[in-house]
Amino acid sequence: MQNTRFTGWQARPSRSIVIDTPTLDRNLAHMQAAAGSAAVWPHIKTHKSPEIARRQRAAGATGLTCALPEEALAMLHAGLGPVTLARPEVDPNQLRALMPHAQRGAVRFTIDHPAHIAAIAAIASGPVDLLVKIDVGLHRMGIAPTIAALQALVAAIPSPLRYAGILSHAGHSYGGASLDAIRQIGAAEVEVMRNLAAAVPAQGEMVVSIGATPTLLAGQDLHSITEIRPGNYALLDMTAVGLGVATRDDIAMAVVATVIGVGAGRVVIDTGSKVLSSDRGAHGTSAVTGYGEVWLDGATAPLTLQRLSEEHGVADSHPDVACDIGQKALVLPNHACPVMNLGGAFTLLPAGQTHLARPTSPEIARQRMMNGR
Amino acid sequence: MQNTRFTGWQARPSRSIVIDTPTLDRNLAHMQAAAGSAAVWPHIKTHKSPEIARRQRAAGATGLTCALPEEALAMLHAGLGPVTLARPEVDPNQLRALMPHAQRGAVRFTIDHPAHIAAIAAIASGPVDLLVKIDVGLHRMGIAPTIAALQALVAAIPSPLRYAGILSHAGHSYGGASLDAIRQIGAAEVEVMRNLAAAVPAQGEMVVSIGATPTLLAGQDLHSITEIRPGNYALLDMTAVGLGVATRDDIAMAVVATVIGVGAGRVVIDTGSKVLSSDRGAHGTSAVTGYGEVWLDGATAPLTLQRLSEEHGVADSHPDVACDIGQKALVLPNHACPVMNLGGAFTLLPAGQTHLARPTSPEIARQRMMNGR
Repeated sequence: MQNTRFTGWQARPSRSIVIDTPTLDRNLAHMQAAAGSAAVWPHIKTHKSPEIARRQRAAGATGLTCALPEEALAMLHAGLGPVTLARPEVDPNQLRALMPHAQRGAVRFTIDHPAHIAAIAAIASGPVDLLVKIDVGLHRMGIAPTIAALQALVAAIPSPLRYAGILSHAGHSYGGASLDAIRQIGAAEVEVMRNLAAAVPAQGEMVVSIGATPTLLAGQDLHSITEIRPGNYALLDMTAVGLGVATRDDIAMAVVATVIGVGAGRVVIDTGSKVLSSDRGAHGTSAVTGYGEVWLDGATAPLTLQRLSEEHGVADSHPDVACDIGQKALVLPNHACPVMNLGGAFTLLPAGQTHLARPTSPEIARQRMMNGR
Repeated sequence: MQNTRFTGWQARPSRSIVIDTPTLDRNLAHMQAAAGSAAVWPHIKTHKSPEIARRQRAAGATGLTCALPEEALAMLHAGLGPVTLARPEVDPNQLRALMPHAQRGAVRFTIDHPAHIAAIAAIASGPVDLLVKIDVGLHRMGIAPTIAALQALVAAIPSPLRYAGILSHAGHSYGGASLDAIRQIGAAEVEVMRNLAAAVPAQGEMVVSIGATPTLLAGQDLHSITEIRPGNYALLDMTAVGLGVATRDDIAMAVVATVIGVGAGRVVIDTGSKVLSSDRGAHGTSAVTGYGEVWLDGATAPLTLQRLSEEHGVADSHPDVACDIGQKALVLPNHACPVMNLGGAFTLLPAGQTHLARPTSPEIARQRMMNGR
């Protein structure tokens, strides 16, 4: 890693999340450029932070993408909408809280089943935009990628709900064995989406929305795509490095740790799965080994975390990496998104401003929603 | 699962953590009975909650165990000390915040290296109790389990610091292939600790502290052991069931989920790794398959989560388990501890009282520590 990055990290206490602001801003600008004429709707699950969402909007993002209703509401309350809710929602209380925003065009819902339509229709009293999720290969959510399946679901949408377009997530690209394999997954996704969009156009302007960081950074051809929804691209991590879509110098987030054990061939840090998560990457990727890289202050080579317990990380020692108890280290995690979710806050470096990520606990956010606030 | 447990869970929103209070209290009483004359110092990492710690003290616990300084301070501020800090701490700011408590006997520190002693000695101005960590087989922290190694480290402890005893954690019991193997690990631990305690007695009353839920629930002989520090026993999880030290009816914690996808042989819930963690158990256990069990309301057989993404859980469908979108489910996680860490709160059932777990974000807790509050 360039030692000009994460300036001032050594002053932060253990288990702090630090973000290199120049790298973050470069990542945001790079994705805006890659998007061409497609609108960028970043998935905020990566950071959960109004501060970073604000930077994404300032860099040119048109809207935001969320998975959780409470996160969508937090972004709307911060004045950062419109929002696409990328996961079907069926809870009446949560739909009720979002519906006023949806009916003024600030929230779009995702569906892949008549039961999703019925749940929204039961609450809606005005026009609401629905996007149909297409399964392009992750086999998680989404209808089969056929014209017949799309036509059947669209036919089940009653007025005043509106079919606004289609969306997909090629998360299986995280399992891509090579850059070429990732590019093929991305090309196949775009072809499927282009054909479906042409065959089943929306009532108004057609939304054709795709988005996964690996395919987009690998250089996806976006012809006929109107929107992209990348998330991880803002911060990146060792998974992206392992996949070959980023270098270590593109990683904008790291965790500060302290060495608490040395000896018997091991280096132990005070940072474990309750900070770094036990993710080995996303969607079963085999792009990473271990649980993250430990860069001791001043070292020119990393140590790899071989195992994590809840509050310990254990790496093999390395003859070229000198190490003492008390020494500080920067950890590059496998997967940035769960780390930001675990952390209560992050510090933007070099300015040193600390911002809350996940400003309230999920439980408090849900209780607020249930009370309609 | 008995349908008399978790009474009222269906009324809680998705991703809520629910605790069956009768089961929790039974687990606490069971461990107190198993401890015999040994003092119980529960590790609060499992729940991070003053409310549950209070129940542990009411059930007979003598003190508490923490890994993080901020958690130790939270417990002390709630009037729930004394506390053993089971992981060596070297950060001067954190040691400074704990030192007034340590010097009145309310915090005991753990060491396994002269550098740990030096860090504490640099801050201490009065007597402080130190426990020496013994590596009984987990190979994470701890000195080699030999009399010579213990004598050497004890000799390095300067006045007014005090050698108060030894402690161990047989976390490798989570990798035990059978109940018999777990019992052998427990027996070996006790033998090592008993011999070391006899050979290198403390200056005052000797502390001989062990603690891992599997060995203790498997029926560890505690002769010569003065203290136990189990954590997971309070809530338990599918790992404990897989290891054979508990049944599903002993699990006191579950997560509420909602089915959002059905079809193509899959059942998808709205609860993923950001709620359940991606832990496959602790310390590399192979006791679990998948990422937790999904019990649909009214079902007599579970679905196993085959994969998690951040906000989705995917199980294979099962011919005997009927399932509709919108239906609620209880999830039994692989590992209770990271789930409580991820959740902002939990509800004690059947009373329905909601309590904060991890009452402040880790970052806020650390900032308070840095400011000496």
